[in-house]
Amino acid sequence: MSLWRYVTPGIPDELFERLPGIPMTKCEVRLLVIGQLRLLPESCLWDIGAGTGTIPVEAGLLCPKGKIVAIERDEEVAELMRQNCHKFGVTNVEIITGTAPECLETLSHRPDRVFVEGGSRMTEMLNYCWQRLAMEGRLLATANSLENLYKISASFADLRVRNVQVVQSAVNRLEQRGNRQVFASVNPIFILSGDKLD
Amino acid sequence: MSLWRYVTPGIPDELFERLPGIPMTKCEVRLLVIGQLRLLPESCLWDIGAGTGTIPVEAGLLCPKGKIVAIERDEEVAELMRQNCHKFGVTNVEIITGTAPECLETLSHRPDRVFVEGGSRMTEMLNYCWQRLAMEGRLLATANSLENLYKISASFADLRVRNVQVVQSAVNRLEQRGNRQVFASVNPIFILSGDKLD
Amino acid sequence: MSLWRYVTPGIPDELFERLPGIPMTKCEVRLLVIGQLRLLPESCLWDIGAGTGTIPVEAGLLCPKGKIVAIERDEEVAELMRQNCHKFGVTNVEIITGTAPECLETLSHRPDRVFVEGGSRMTEMLNYCWQRLAMEGRLLATANSLENLYKISASFADLRVRNVQVVQSAVNRLEQRGNRQVFASVNPIFILSGDKLD
Amino acid sequence: MSLWRYVTPGIPDELFERLPGIPMTKCEVRLLVIGQLRLLPESCLWDIGAGTGTIPVEAGLLCPKGKIVAIERDEEVAELMRQNCHKFGVTNVEIITGTAPECLETLSHRPDRVFVEGGSRMTEMLNYCWQRLAMEGRLLATANSLENLYKISASFADLRVRNVQVVQSAVNRLEQRGNRQVFASVNPIFILSGDKLD
Repeated sequence: MSLWRYVTPGIPDELFERLPGIPMTKCEVRLLVIGQLRLLPESCLWDIGAGTGTIPVEAGLLCPKGKIVAIERDEEVAELMRQNCHKFGVTNVEIITGTAPECLETLSHRPDRVFVEGGSRMTEMLNYCWQRLAMEGRLLATANSLENLYKISASFADLRVRNVQVVQSAVNRLEQRGNRQVFASVNPIFILSGDKLD
Repeated sequence: MSLWRYVTPGIPDELFERLPGIPMTKCEVRLLVIGQLRLLPESCLWDIGAGTGTIPVEAGLLCPKGKIVAIERDEEVAELMRQNCHKFGVTNVEIITGTAPECLETLSHRPDRVFVEGGSRMTEMLNYCWQRLAMEGRLLATANSLENLYKISASFADLRVRNVQVVQSAVNRLEQRGNRQVFASVNPIFILSGDKLD
Repeated sequence: MSLWRYVTPGIPDELFERLPGIPMTKCEVRLLVIGQLRLLPESCLWDIGAGTGTIPVEAGLLCPKGKIVAIERDEEVAELMRQNCHKFGVTNVEIITGTAPECLETLSHRPDRVFVEGGSRMTEMLNYCWQRLAMEGRLLATANSLENLYKISASFADLRVRNVQVVQSAVNRLEQRGNRQVFASVNPIFILSGDKLD
Repeated sequence: MSLWRYVTPGIPDELFERLPGIPMTKCEVRLLVIGQLRLLPESCLWDIGAGTGTIPVEAGLLCPKGKIVAIERDEEVAELMRQNCHKFGVTNVEIITGTAPECLETLSHRPDRVFVEGGSRMTEMLNYCWQRLAMEGRLLATANSLENLYKISASFADLRVRNVQVVQSAVNRLEQRGNRQVFASVNPIFILSGDKLD
C-alpha cells in the first residue's frame, strides 16, 4: 500500500526524506503550485530544479497516466529525489541529472506543463522552455528573490505569456516548541503562471 | 465536456456563480482546505455551511466515487450551490437546506470527513460532528474571527482531536486595477484540522 | 490642546479626515515609513504625492523644528490635507498643489529626506529627487504594484542608493463586523529606503 | 553624540547587542508596539520581560523626561539590557532583575503604560498590572503563541479593557544571502492593546 493513499495533494513535509541545506517546497506552497499547474490526466510536466522532489511526487500521484521529467544538476540531490519517489511508490517520474537547459536538448517530446523552480539563469531557462512548451500548455516559475521576481515577470511579458497570475504565498503555521504552540511563518514565495496560446 | 477538465484542484474564483454578500472560499484558501481534508477515493464528506459550494464542487470532482453532503441553511444560497454543481458537472453532491446540527439527524450514515465553515454555534457543531465522524476520520474547521479560532481550538482539545494542525493562510495576489497590477491581500483564514483516532 | 498629545507616531486612521477614493497610508504602514525616514530634529522632508496627509501630520508632530513640503496635484485632496494639518495643530507643513517634479523647481532648498508615495512617473521622480536630495539624506519610496516595485528597485541601483532596505508590510487587524471580530488584512505595501552617501 | 540621533523610532536590529537564544523584538514589530504604547512626554512605562531591551531603549529615547522600569528575571539578560541602554546613551531606564509580578510589589508608583512581553503566567500578570495601572493608562501585551493570544484576549475582556485593538504583524524583509536578495518573513506577533477608563 502506498504511503499516501489520498486523492488530494498536500503531503506533510515531514514525510519526505530530506538533506540538510537542500531546499524543499513546503506543503502550503506546494498546494498553490499544484493548483496553478492545472494538470491534465496525461500531462507531461518538466520540473526544472526539482530538488527534494516534492512536486514530482505529488504530480506523479495525481497523474498516474502522466509523465514527469525532473531535472536536478546535483547527483546527491537527484538520489534524494529518487528515494522520495520510491518511498511514495511513484513510478512515472524520470529523473535527469544535468544542467538545464542544455540537458533538455536530449528530450524529443514537448511538455504541456513546465515548472521552473528558482535558479540563476532564469531568463534563459524561461525562453528555452517556452519554445519547447506545447501549445495550450502552461508555464510556471517561483521566485524567492526580488531579482528572480523581476526576471520572471519581464520574461513572461516578452514571451507574451497569457492569463498571467502572480500569487505570493505567506502562510503561518502553529508549530510546537517544547510545550508551547508558536506562530511561525513559512518564507514567502512568489508563484507566477500563465498559458501559451499563440 | 466538463468546465474543469484538470485532475488538480484550484478552480479560479471567477468560474463560480456568485451572489452578492455570500462568502466564498477563495482559491488559495480552498487549496489549503482540500490539502488538509486528505480525501480518500470513496470518502464521505459533510460540508457544514457550504455557502457558494466551492468545496463541494472541488471535492466532488476529486472524488467521483465519493459522496459530499453540503449543508446550507439559506434556500437561495443552496440554489446557488446547486447551480455551481451543475455548471461543473458534479453529480455526487447532496445539498440539504436546513440548520445544522439538527438537520444532520436525518442522515443515517457516518462521514469520514467533516468540514465546518464558520458559523455561530461552533462548539455545539463540532461536538455533534465529532460524535458522528467515523473512526480514523478527519475533522476540519475554519475561522476568520478570534472567537471562532478560540472555540475551535478549545473544542479540539476537549474532544481529544489528534495530530492537530493550525495553518493561517495569508496570500497576496497581484490584481489588475485599470492598467496597473496591484498587490492585494486575501483576508487571512485559520484552518484547523485533526484526526479521530480513539 | 492638540488632538494628538503623544510623543509616539501611530495616529489611528479614523482620526484623519478622509475623502472617498483618496488613498491613505494606513497606521501600520505609516509606522514602518516613519521608522525608515529616520527624521532628524530639523529635517526637511519632501513628501511627493502626499494624499490624505497622514505622513506630513505625523512628521510635523515629531519634528516641530523641522519642515515638511507636501506635494499633491489634486486641489481637492490638497484641501483635505490642509484640514488634517489644521485638525492636528500642525503648522510646519507647506502644501504645494502641483505636478511633481516640475513644481519642485520653484523650491530653492535641499531636502534631507524625500518620500515618494507611488505615482505613474516613478523613475523620473526618483532621478529628480535624488539630484535635489542633500548629501547624507535618505530617499524612500513605496510601491503597491509590481511595476513600481521594479522601477524603484532599478532606480535605486542606478542611482547608487546605499544601505537599501526593502520591507513588505503585511499586517492583519481584528476588525469589528457586527458583533464579531474578524481578521482583516491591510493590503501589502513595499517600502524601499536608502542613503545618499556619495 | 548618541548612537541614535533621530527623533523617530525604528532602530535597526543589528545596532543592538545580542545574546544567542535571547529573543529580540524585531524592528518592524517594535514600531507597531511603540505606536500602540502612545507614550506621553512624562509617561512611566513598565516593560515586563524586557529581554534584549529594545523597547526600553526606544521608549527611553522618545521620552527623555519619562521613566521606564524594565523587568527581566535572568541576570545575564538584564546585563545585556544594561549594555544596550548604555550603548544608546539612555539613562531613564531602571532595570529590575526579578520575577514579575512579585518583584513589582516593591515599586510604590503607578505606571501609566504597561507592556507585557510574552511569559508563562500571562493571566496573573495582566491581572496584577491592571490593578497597578494608572487611570487613563494603557495596557499592551504581545503573543507569539495561540495560548497567550487566548489568555490575553480573555483577560482583556475580564478586566474590561476599553478600545481593545488586536494587530498581527506579518512583515517580510528582503535579506541578503550571498549575492542574492531573498524574501524572508519576520515571525508573526499579535499585539493587543487597550485603555483603562474605569
